[in-house]
Amino acid sequence: MKKYRVESGRSFRLEDFDPDDTSAFKGGKQEALVALEALNKKLERLQELLFAEGKHKVLVVLQAMDAGGKDGTIRVVFDGVDPSGVRVASFGVPTEHELARDYLWRVHQQVPRKGELVIFNRSHYEDVLVVRVKNLVPKEVWQKRYHHIREFERMLADEGTTILKFFLHISKDEQRERLQERLDNPEKRWKFRKGDLDDRKLWDQYQEAFEDALRETSTAYAPWYVIPANKNWYRNWLVSSILVETLESLKMQYPKPEIGLEKIVIE
Amino acid sequence: MKKYRVESGRSFRLEDFDPDDTSAFKGGKQEALVALEALNKKLERLQELLFAEGKHKVLVVLQAMDAGGKDGTIRVVFDGVDPSGVRVASFGVPTEHELARDYLWRVHQQVPRKGELVIFNRSHYEDVLVVRVKNLVPKEVWQKRYHHIREFERMLADEGTTILKFFLHISKDEQRERLQERLDNPEKRWKFRKGDLDDRKLWDQYQEAFEDALRETSTAYAPWYVIPANKNWYRNWLVSSILVETLESLKMQYPKPEIGLEKIVIE
Repeated sequence: MKKYRVESGRSFRLEDFDPDDTSAFKGGKQEALVALEALNKKLERLQELLFAEGKHKVLVVLQAMDAGGKDGTIRVVFDGVDPSGVRVASFGVPTEHELARDYLWRVHQQVPRKGELVIFNRSHYEDVLVVRVKNLVPKEVWQKRYHHIREFERMLADEGTTILKFFLHISKDEQRERLQERLDNPEKRWKFRKGDLDDRKLWDQYQEAFEDALRETSTAYAPWYVIPANKNWYRNWLVSSILVETLESLKMQYPKPEIGLEKIVIE
Repeated sequence: MKKYRVESGRSFRLEDFDPDDTSAFKGGKQEALVALEALNKKLERLQELLFAEGKHKVLVVLQAMDAGGKDGTIRVVFDGVDPSGVRVASFGVPTEHELARDYLWRVHQQVPRKGELVIFNRSHYEDVLVVRVKNLVPKEVWQKRYHHIREFERMLADEGTTILKFFLHISKDEQRERLQERLDNPEKRWKFRKGDLDDRKLWDQYQEAFEDALRETSTAYAPWYVIPANKNWYRNWLVSSILVETLESLKMQYPKPEIGLEKIVIE
């Protein structure tokens, strides 16, 4: 898994990562689907334990280009987990109310509580991605945000939050195929916005913004992973594997029962 | 399903409902599990449609005595739905911050948005249940709350919220067995609090408080259902059936795509 982790302090280039890569899995799609099912069962147990223990907070950040597979990843990787302990926070275009505060304000309100796993579908990273590419604030404003974000995440981690950040990495060709499929399939057409085409024209600028964001904000306490995402099965398997491995490393335990319960007979 | 609905304006008695009843399902446990699987697939599709259409708001309220099966109902009935569109709001003992406001304040903040399905695990009904039974406020205070609640829910319904309220109805014997099982099973023992025994001693007072609450607040726009819940398979099947039937009655439709998308070829 380590090869997909963006090492902080090093020179990082997105082009060194192949969106078609499937090399960490020994086998093909069918085997991966079987492996995913086993990982999914493990994740269910680990999440139950996380909730029961009520000690750790877990934050998963998902970012990607349009059609990169954020929604699908959430649906498949978290299939079957208990909705009582897992929450998705989706960050769309900020409202007037939100824009009247700093850009971390709305994000801070959605962080996980003890025992909770929260998935950010988009996040504060939009404030150094779309905001930068579309010049919504001047460079001298967004440039300072990498530092804010590093320090904000450091505080969350110091206070007991385990943070995992996934960039779902697709190629420009793969995006074309996925968007075209949305257009050609009458059942999916409603998902398509003409605005998606404008964003696609800014592909290179977005890639550059992602590269800078990942390089600037991947830390030991809140690492970024570049997930090769042209193949859904590999993407799902890899995200699930990293998640399960990370949760297992927390060495969680069920809470101890109150003392003296063994002998109670209920009337 | 109608026979489990508490009709407003009528004299309602909880003792007319048998917690062991399984009469609305033709068949036994095995057949019910198969039927539940089919309902679950339907629910997944309907929730996807709810989210896509982005028009209706859906609120499911779950209340029960201790060990009544609220958590299990959420886990099983909503197994596999997309966490991006489904949220569980659990209401525990109110914090000082919450108690400094009226009792509907924290609840109002958690109501579903357009396209969202929210499950209340406990709710504002605790403010006429535990609060009444344990004399946390005087009778002249909690007595007025039935009216507040009817009017609060009327407003939510008028503004586009579909409300379903389920009372998971178990017998006192069944509660004993379930609590004893928690005590006897070392893996479940941590869930047991000695305080659960105090609540059990107040069984009759709780039943009376539930009876009054259901009678006073079951309305055409926010009906209560008494779910026979001694048998988990029947409880899950019945809640799922009522939910699916209600969602189907909304006649939801996928949104229409933007005009002129058919001919676009993406470069």
